[in-house]
Amino acid sequence: MIRQSLLLLLCIAGFSGCKNNAEKFSDKKPGATQEVSSQTRIIDLTHPFSDETVYWVTAREFELEEVAKGQTDNGYFYAANNFSTAEHGGTHIDAPIHFYETGQTVDEIPLDNLIGQAIKVNVTGKAKNNPDYQVSIEDFKNWEQKHQMLIPDKCIIILETGFGSYYPDKQKYLGTLNRGPDAVKELHFPGLSPEAATWLTDKRNIKAIGLDTPSIDYGQSQDFKSHVVLMSKNIPVFENVANVDKLPESDFQIIALPIKIKGGSGGPLRIIALLRQ
Amino acid sequence: MIRQSLLLLLCIAGFSGCKNNAEKFSDKKPGATQEVSSQTRIIDLTHPFSDETVYWVTAREFELEEVAKGQTDNGYFYAANNFSTAEHGGTHIDAPIHFYETGQTVDEIPLDNLIGQAIKVNVTGKAKNNPDYQVSIEDFKNWEQKHQMLIPDKCIIILETGFGSYYPDKQKYLGTLNRGPDAVKELHFPGLSPEAATWLTDKRNIKAIGLDTPSIDYGQSQDFKSHVVLMSKNIPVFENVANVDKLPESDFQIIALPIKIKGGSGGPLRIIALLRQ
Repeated sequence: MIRQSLLLLLCIAGFSGCKNNAEKFSDKKPGATQEVSSQTRIIDLTHPFSDETVYWVTAREFELEEVAKGQTDNGYFYAANNFSTAEHGGTHIDAPIHFYETGQTVDEIPLDNLIGQAIKVNVTGKAKNNPDYQVSIEDFKNWEQKHQMLIPDKCIIILETGFGSYYPDKQKYLGTLNRGPDAVKELHFPGLSPEAATWLTDKRNIKAIGLDTPSIDYGQSQDFKSHVVLMSKNIPVFENVANVDKLPESDFQIIALPIKIKGGSGGPLRIIALLRQ
Repeated sequence: MIRQSLLLLLCIAGFSGCKNNAEKFSDKKPGATQEVSSQTRIIDLTHPFSDETVYWVTAREFELEEVAKGQTDNGYFYAANNFSTAEHGGTHIDAPIHFYETGQTVDEIPLDNLIGQAIKVNVTGKAKNNPDYQVSIEDFKNWEQKHQMLIPDKCIIILETGFGSYYPDKQKYLGTLNRGPDAVKELHFPGLSPEAATWLTDKRNIKAIGLDTPSIDYGQSQDFKSHVVLMSKNIPVFENVANVDKLPESDFQIIALPIKIKGGSGGPLRIIALLRQ
């Protein structure tokens, strides 16, 4: 099956112009593409992993252990570390198996589902004074009305709730500074409503969805229904996505490449956007 | 400064055709791009992380700890894990600080240096019966002669030694099944010669270099000179790259996105290639 996002990428694969060094072979000239570059930007949508990284209140946090840093007896400098982390913390991916037994593990997600055309749905206004806000079917229909098009087939959706601006302030971003099982009920942040998750899977055809909060289900969710709905359809989720305020509402591309853990339920994700200046 | 790889990506960012669902807004039609997709392929150049992942003989290996897997009392399935690893194992990136004190940390590497036009230099024939083979200046000059062009400015180089076919057989791939400091002297696998590393940095202008062995310096190296030469110029290195035998010698793109560890000397890398069918 030919997946749509691949067509987006042929321009890259097909690119053959290159600026050669001006020695011999000078008959091979670069294509007339240099000007074009000034019109594209890469935006890193990834929070760094550090002591400040935000995790679910019950999850193991990121730890970096220095193994070496300094001059060696053999005359060269050498630095190396070990690290440990929960799969689900910081900017990360939920593989479908995270909430669906027969869903894809993180290494099984087709790369094509992680790369392609994207849109952003901005609900910042509604979530500003309501940390329990759930993105609704109406929010998606409003996007379609405003842009005079349906949500593109096989696109990736990024939700902007405005909560990304609080990261990594846990009190504001999670709703609590406490940790442990008792802190779960103190979580307050926006998410995607289960009704809208169902509508997206039934009425539209998306590859993946991400947002600028810790979870696709809002903080007060008990049943994580949006996770279940999406993951039963093998739709992966990107959580704690950074810099979504820098994205336009349409006409950009997402490349989201997670760590390839065999059998993993998710893991750290490096996610970037490509857009016109 | 406008970096060359960005121009490669405008095709993506500028893509606006999309196949809308056939409800209303049908006046917005997709671009004539569907046929194009059949000509592009994504190749995953990443080995999965598991118990089999190959690490340096002195490095901490990958460990996955199951936190949850099964039905919850609330009626939904849930799976999650923790993991720990050395930064440098499996398919990973060496950030310049790994061997150069003032080099970039992994979170500081410009994304533009990790994305762009690539070439492959194949030395499989020379390394087949010589596990201590070091890729030479002549090998790069041979590529240029064969392709009648200089190594493109700001490209990414992938070296194919053939050792990727041994992965994850440690005896064949590393040269030893032993672990610990005493096993270092038993390492035998090909790498890049320091002379060629110097030539690449002095005479050509590359963004990054990767290969299908555990290290850019060959197994018997004592001073890791190729690392030092490259990293003193902020050129990152991709090691244990998978599936390089599936790459052509030119005319493809690399997207290499590492885990974003603040201050990290490297880390797990998800690296893919885009190429024409």
